[in-house]
Amino acid sequence: MIVPDTAEKIKSMEIRGAGRIGRAAAEALRDHAVSLSARDPGSFRQEMERAAAILLATRPTAVSLPNAVHIVMAGLEGATSAEAAQAGVIRRAEEFIRSSQNAVEQIAKFGASHIRDGDTILTHCNSEVALGCIIEAHRQGKEIEVFATEVRPRNQGLITIRTLNDAGIKTNFIVDSAVRSFIHDIDLVVVGADAVTVNGAVVNKIGTAQVAHSAREARVNMIVAAETYKFAPRTILGELIRIEERAGSEVLPDEIARTLPHVTVRNPAFDVTPANYIDLIVTEKGAIPPQMAYVIIRDYLGWGIDTFHETFGPESPNGE
Amino acid sequence: MIVPDTAEKIKSMEIRGAGRIGRAAAEALRDHAVSLSARDPGSFRQEMERAAAILLATRPTAVSLPNAVHIVMAGLEGATSAEAAQAGVIRRAEEFIRSSQNAVEQIAKFGASHIRDGDTILTHCNSEVALGCIIEAHRQGKEIEVFATEVRPRNQGLITIRTLNDAGIKTNFIVDSAVRSFIHDIDLVVVGADAVTVNGAVVNKIGTAQVAHSAREARVNMIVAAETYKFAPRTILGELIRIEERAGSEVLPDEIARTLPHVTVRNPAFDVTPANYIDLIVTEKGAIPPQMAYVIIRDYLGWGIDTFHETFGPESPNGE
Amino acid sequence: MIVPDTAEKIKSMEIRGAGRIGRAAAEALRDHAVSLSARDPGSFRQEMERAAAILLATRPTAVSLPNAVHIVMAGLEGATSAEAAQAGVIRRAEEFIRSSQNAVEQIAKFGASHIRDGDTILTHCNSEVALGCIIEAHRQGKEIEVFATEVRPRNQGLITIRTLNDAGIKTNFIVDSAVRSFIHDIDLVVVGADAVTVNGAVVNKIGTAQVAHSAREARVNMIVAAETYKFAPRTILGELIRIEERAGSEVLPDEIARTLPHVTVRNPAFDVTPANYIDLIVTEKGAIPPQMAYVIIRDYLGWGIDTFHETFGPESPNGE
Amino acid sequence: MIVPDTAEKIKSMEIRGAGRIGRAAAEALRDHAVSLSARDPGSFRQEMERAAAILLATRPTAVSLPNAVHIVMAGLEGATSAEAAQAGVIRRAEEFIRSSQNAVEQIAKFGASHIRDGDTILTHCNSEVALGCIIEAHRQGKEIEVFATEVRPRNQGLITIRTLNDAGIKTNFIVDSAVRSFIHDIDLVVVGADAVTVNGAVVNKIGTAQVAHSAREARVNMIVAAETYKFAPRTILGELIRIEERAGSEVLPDEIARTLPHVTVRNPAFDVTPANYIDLIVTEKGAIPPQMAYVIIRDYLGWGIDTFHETFGPESPNGE
Amino acid sequence: MIVPDTAEKIKSMEIRGAGRIGRAAAEALRDHAVSLSARDPGSFRQEMERAAAILLATRPTAVSLPNAVHIVMAGLEGATSAEAAQAGVIRRAEEFIRSSQNAVEQIAKFGASHIRDGDTILTHCNSEVALGCIIEAHRQGKEIEVFATEVRPRNQGLITIRTLNDAGIKTNFIVDSAVRSFIHDIDLVVVGADAVTVNGAVVNKIGTAQVAHSAREARVNMIVAAETYKFAPRTILGELIRIEERAGSEVLPDEIARTLPHVTVRNPAFDVTPANYIDLIVTEKGAIPPQMAYVIIRDYLGWGIDTFHETFGPESPNGE
Amino acid sequence: MIVPDTAEKIKSMEIRGAGRIGRAAAEALRDHAVSLSARDPGSFRQEMERAAAILLATRPTAVSLPNAVHIVMAGLEGATSAEAAQAGVIRRAEEFIRSSQNAVEQIAKFGASHIRDGDTILTHCNSEVALGCIIEAHRQGKEIEVFATEVRPRNQGLITIRTLNDAGIKTNFIVDSAVRSFIHDIDLVVVGADAVTVNGAVVNKIGTAQVAHSAREARVNMIVAAETYKFAPRTILGELIRIEERAGSEVLPDEIARTLPHVTVRNPAFDVTPANYIDLIVTEKGAIPPQMAYVIIRDYLGWGIDTFHETFGPESPNGE
Repeated sequence: MIVPDTAEKIKSMEIRGAGRIGRAAAEALRDHAVSLSARDPGSFRQEMERAAAILLATRPTAVSLPNAVHIVMAGLEGATSAEAAQAGVIRRAEEFIRSSQNAVEQIAKFGASHIRDGDTILTHCNSEVALGCIIEAHRQGKEIEVFATEVRPRNQGLITIRTLNDAGIKTNFIVDSAVRSFIHDIDLVVVGADAVTVNGAVVNKIGTAQVAHSAREARVNMIVAAETYKFAPRTILGELIRIEERAGSEVLPDEIARTLPHVTVRNPAFDVTPANYIDLIVTEKGAIPPQMAYVIIRDYLGWGIDTFHETFGPESPNGE
Repeated sequence: MIVPDTAEKIKSMEIRGAGRIGRAAAEALRDHAVSLSARDPGSFRQEMERAAAILLATRPTAVSLPNAVHIVMAGLEGATSAEAAQAGVIRRAEEFIRSSQNAVEQIAKFGASHIRDGDTILTHCNSEVALGCIIEAHRQGKEIEVFATEVRPRNQGLITIRTLNDAGIKTNFIVDSAVRSFIHDIDLVVVGADAVTVNGAVVNKIGTAQVAHSAREARVNMIVAAETYKFAPRTILGELIRIEERAGSEVLPDEIARTLPHVTVRNPAFDVTPANYIDLIVTEKGAIPPQMAYVIIRDYLGWGIDTFHETFGPESPNGE
Repeated sequence: MIVPDTAEKIKSMEIRGAGRIGRAAAEALRDHAVSLSARDPGSFRQEMERAAAILLATRPTAVSLPNAVHIVMAGLEGATSAEAAQAGVIRRAEEFIRSSQNAVEQIAKFGASHIRDGDTILTHCNSEVALGCIIEAHRQGKEIEVFATEVRPRNQGLITIRTLNDAGIKTNFIVDSAVRSFIHDIDLVVVGADAVTVNGAVVNKIGTAQVAHSAREARVNMIVAAETYKFAPRTILGELIRIEERAGSEVLPDEIARTLPHVTVRNPAFDVTPANYIDLIVTEKGAIPPQMAYVIIRDYLGWGIDTFHETFGPESPNGE
Repeated sequence: MIVPDTAEKIKSMEIRGAGRIGRAAAEALRDHAVSLSARDPGSFRQEMERAAAILLATRPTAVSLPNAVHIVMAGLEGATSAEAAQAGVIRRAEEFIRSSQNAVEQIAKFGASHIRDGDTILTHCNSEVALGCIIEAHRQGKEIEVFATEVRPRNQGLITIRTLNDAGIKTNFIVDSAVRSFIHDIDLVVVGADAVTVNGAVVNKIGTAQVAHSAREARVNMIVAAETYKFAPRTILGELIRIEERAGSEVLPDEIARTLPHVTVRNPAFDVTPANYIDLIVTEKGAIPPQMAYVIIRDYLGWGIDTFHETFGPESPNGE
Repeated sequence: MIVPDTAEKIKSMEIRGAGRIGRAAAEALRDHAVSLSARDPGSFRQEMERAAAILLATRPTAVSLPNAVHIVMAGLEGATSAEAAQAGVIRRAEEFIRSSQNAVEQIAKFGASHIRDGDTILTHCNSEVALGCIIEAHRQGKEIEVFATEVRPRNQGLITIRTLNDAGIKTNFIVDSAVRSFIHDIDLVVVGADAVTVNGAVVNKIGTAQVAHSAREARVNMIVAAETYKFAPRTILGELIRIEERAGSEVLPDEIARTLPHVTVRNPAFDVTPANYIDLIVTEKGAIPPQMAYVIIRDYLGWGIDTFHETFGPESPNGE
Repeated sequence: MIVPDTAEKIKSMEIRGAGRIGRAAAEALRDHAVSLSARDPGSFRQEMERAAAILLATRPTAVSLPNAVHIVMAGLEGATSAEAAQAGVIRRAEEFIRSSQNAVEQIAKFGASHIRDGDTILTHCNSEVALGCIIEAHRQGKEIEVFATEVRPRNQGLITIRTLNDAGIKTNFIVDSAVRSFIHDIDLVVVGADAVTVNGAVVNKIGTAQVAHSAREARVNMIVAAETYKFAPRTILGELIRIEERAGSEVLPDEIARTLPHVTVRNPAFDVTPANYIDLIVTEKGAIPPQMAYVIIRDYLGWGIDTFHETFGPESPNGE
């Protein structure tokens, strides 16, 4: 019963966050494999594929979901017995879970290397991995200072400055539109990602692309911290990342909106930063130039052009 | 008693706004000239200069104040009798008041010419002259659509969308950081100015420079609507515009700030858009390229290198 | 009868070309002034204004027409007798005609100074003044080579290469889209202008802006040769230059077009090159940076914000 | 006799077009392998290499020819018997043919994903794969509009608009030099390629680089549709793509040219678009950033630094 | 005898430096005017023109020489008697001398306003006016730090760092090619000028344009300190500034050069920084955008298109 | 005793240069393997790892050292006997030595293909591989010309021009700051590299980044010649290349420095050129776009994220 349960929780957003969704799916598949009593590899595979399909259908746009399912299901390859298939699935599921759990820590270590003693860092939105890099650099004894933005309309910047404050890091809080005014004080921009496309474009919280553009204007380096399961495999097929547009009430209270019949709120949750505004993407598999996204998708996530199942829906960031 | 009264009201910000401050100063000088009983031009001038100094001392950073005073006081030039001097001051004061009152309307007409039928306009902050251009274009029957930003931290965008809604103009409301996401839908950016420097840089509400930069990236034209009394004469002397930094509580409530000892709010009220991101400045004296600011200051405002009085303080936008 | 005659010829395009139109208008006004028997300056002016209006109505978009009329009519200013007014008009008309006739030669001399021995020049379209600069440099004994484009859809490049060939100048002929391929061989781009706007943007034959953009990409200098009567006064009022869209049959023969119901030909005759892609505009009043267009319009053509008559229509290049 | 026949037809351009040349070579090698009666793998290989050399010599600059031959000949690797070698060659030849035949369709599907409902697309020249993407998007029911260029000097744009018209797609036809004038109306540029170099530069019909440059100026995305056999393996060796310069009479009729002794026509058939003006290359193996060309050449076409035979000539697009 | 004496000293470079040359010429003309006993204004003017011609012939490329002579000679305008002409010349000469002597001090004051407390300034070469700005800012109590370049091949940077050291200013000394490496530490670039052209391009010591380019890449502001007599009037006529190429032995000792027959030293003394890399030119008449150079030449130096005498030679920086 | 000997020589810089250091380390490991008498593979590996650690400790910042050691040590992988392990190490060591010895020659051949007959090449500093490309092109009979810079502060340009002179190549010698002045005469820039990072940034002699920036401004192509052992593996871990700052006396003689207490010499030996200013990196494994550095490090040098030993120090160019 584990698979329908997990599927339900992902659907209802009880389980959310790219990492948590991926790990929950891997666990569900692993437990399902353990529970199966199939005797021949063919029917074992069939059972597993049914379970995978249920999970994939829950949130067709969560980018970590197909990555997790695909990696776990690859444990079936080449198995000549149901036992081997089962063992393969279990091994791959546990590898995925462990690697995913370690990813933030690993990225923090790699990213912290890019922060030098005395640096001033700018971050936008509230990314666990981006903050991980900054806090790790601080933990290493580097004297750093941070500029954090407000992040309208949901003000995630408030969580960010609380985290930084609690870590004892000197932090400056600014409105989103003040980034360019302070860019000459910044040595490095560090942000997270909701999704990375095959050509290294980064989908992240609305405003990230403006930050990147201001950084490039002043030739300040920008790095993106992203676990490999954020890389969007279906962009190899030419698919576009669907940018979620959220409720206008996040920006303008309904009681005001109601009085303004000619006004519409437009509230895209994400924007797209082109690869040539990004100096480096830091993953748990190492730092790479954004153009190397294709290799991550093919070699680490295991997607080739022939491995896509038609049942997979279009991708988009999973909008936490 | 008119001069000290007006001075007090400007100081206490009972009178505020670049146009209103300028006109109040011109009226005070005119009324003072009317009230003077000096017989010889020398002592008349002395009396007027004393009055001018009182006015100038009130808000040393209001850019329209020295422009208004300077233009009115030029009425003293060449006068060989107290009567002539008085008449000169009165004539110049009334010209300034009339021209200032007509400026918005005139600029609206010139600016509207730049808006074509079917255009989508983006504006930032709540500028009377910028909105004047847009509403005039609408009034002329052009079918237009507007994107207006929220304008953190003081949310002047709410006033803007109310004005546009009341004019019956189809308007989209977006957060400040979403400008780049919609820039391909925009045909023209129209903003106001708090001050224009001698090299055509425009000081305006924080975020304007990021808007301009996004517009330039997509090669969308940007025009600035600005009355000539917004041009900052002392920048000819190399003086920098002082960017006011306002209270942190505008961005982060004090009760939260108090709990975050490592966090400082930085809240500059304005930023500086370089001239080469601006296609045209529309003044009541016509549309000019930003680099022509020097000519406006010299030929329309009447400031030469030798006309500056040492008593004038540094300039900055007057921060309404 | 001279005024209606000239008006008719301008309307029917028997008289065409910015210079010829301007001079014909000046001649017509001069001859009209000579023929008038008005005794008082008021009725003389009235007669002249009636004649001016007739001329201005012929081709509302010809940019040299209002410039010529405005310059000649300024001869009426301050005249206290009909004789003085007449003399003023005649003097101004003859000055305009002479200056206009000398302009090409003068510009050729100034422009040739920018061409160095051994230079390779690229030109686009068939501009008399641009070619004047090139031929003058050749005449001065400088060894030069030219690249000339085909200039679709009307192939004016053919006239250009014939002119250059007849002058004995080594010339290369290329299709319009090959400009970027040869840009590294080019030392200087020289083109003409149909109109220059108040912010130094240059309206010229379609393709000019792409040439300018390719030149800027490789940081090759580009100069524009333009008589001052090409500067569009009404752009000071915020007016846009109307870009003429010509018959589709220039691009696609009607007999083919007829067979393609889903296909529309778009055939704008001109495009707009922004000022920051232009290094210098060479006029008969000297070489200026494009941003100085405002000063040309105000100081040489005599247009202030208050001198515009409401009867003037919108401007656009006169499309020869 | 199949190999000499095919060689002759490729040489005489009876067989032309990158895809057709590649498939004809693969078929010839396959049929040759079938016809061979060699008993030992060594002499079988020798015979095959002789045939390959004949084919390669026909058009040393056709980029698909060495790719096809190389892929087919890889079927010989590791074969320990003549039968195995024969089977290997046949299998590889048929795979290449099938994959090449499916490539256009596959690319169309991937490329169409990049076209959104309501988009306006610009294309230059007449590329089967680029048009495939557009037509597939239309077939999927997306409402789209196209701008197509004339493509001087051979006017391939006429074929393009006929194809689009027949597909029922709303199309605008413009001269090559009008691209920049319409670029703000464009949502996506889609072009084909004659060759792709190891660093992702795209060799395509003259004018493509100007289109790409105008698109980048306005930050409009540009994608290139290219089968993998268009990737030029020898550019890994540092070889430059030779840009063919075609007869001047394509641009200027000989009877006119004859009368212009100082005029030379320069007629390069292709130009080179740098990788950083291209957002994505869509191949039948998926969408990739241009910088990934090296991986395509190495991993899909199978060229390593050690696999080049000295007999291969320099590359250039095959100039249909 | 004063004029031939001064002429000889300018020719032999006993008198050198733009300011000293200009003042020496003004003094010579003044003294000559005093010495003349002509009775009628016509012959007085003739005598003065002869003297002016002698001075102008000495160093045809010194840009301050024609400016000084032109300004002084304007004293003859409108004089109806020899006495009035004499008085006019004397008055204008003394004004020029005084203004020239005060220029450095005035510019220092204006330029210092652009330097803020805490700024780090970069300067290139050894410009009296540029250093004046920096030292004035230091004198005003602003805490500043300077980066100064070596300035190959003549190592003027050594003089610069000695001057700064003696003023007690914290200074960093770097090789010319290290500018880009430190540009993120720089808040403002301040350099001098040898000549300023009509379109605001600045001719200055070789390397200045690279400094400007690095500053622009990181969007660091750059200001140029230049007395108005550095503005080159004949560039209005389209004349190019001739860039002096100095002896190769400055770069490579002759005894080495002699052993390298295939090697040529190229040693241009100056380079040209385009106007759009410069934020402001600070003159003694105030700060201006570079595009305003035309107005300086016309309105402050008094050159119109009609005032050029054919005897004036081409301009170039006077190469001290 | 060979390992400690070699280690000592590397430490004392008796052995220096990236290639020589790498080969010496490989030889030392090979000879050590030959000398070992270990019977079981475990203790053989232990002995080898001890030797490797000694070598790695000598110059922790030499980028070729870990590459050589890593490649040789990979010979131990999968060995099931001490003999096999020994043989593996010997084979890998000899392959590395041979490949390293051939690398310059191979790169010269690939790089020369990018130089066309008639080209003018600019090079900076004295790179054996960059000069190899130029001299090979000359040897192939291409008529070429070179611009070489002085390369302050150590004047390596003198060695460069001597090498080029001796090869009979027409060479121009310029100061470092004159690059931009001659960039329009240049067809191709060719430089070497001290290190290449994972995102394709090139660390090379100070001044290289300014050369690259000037080349990009004029859109002149720039290629970097670099052996694969120059690619810095630890940058995958996010490590930054440490830029060595050398003695101030290289720039300013101590006896002068002593007299200038406020002056500090800053003397970074290298700078960093971003990948997007580089068109191609030419390695002995072929020409690649800079973004492909990751693939070189992973596939040719054999570094994966899991292969890094914690004992490896930070990287920096080895500063010869």
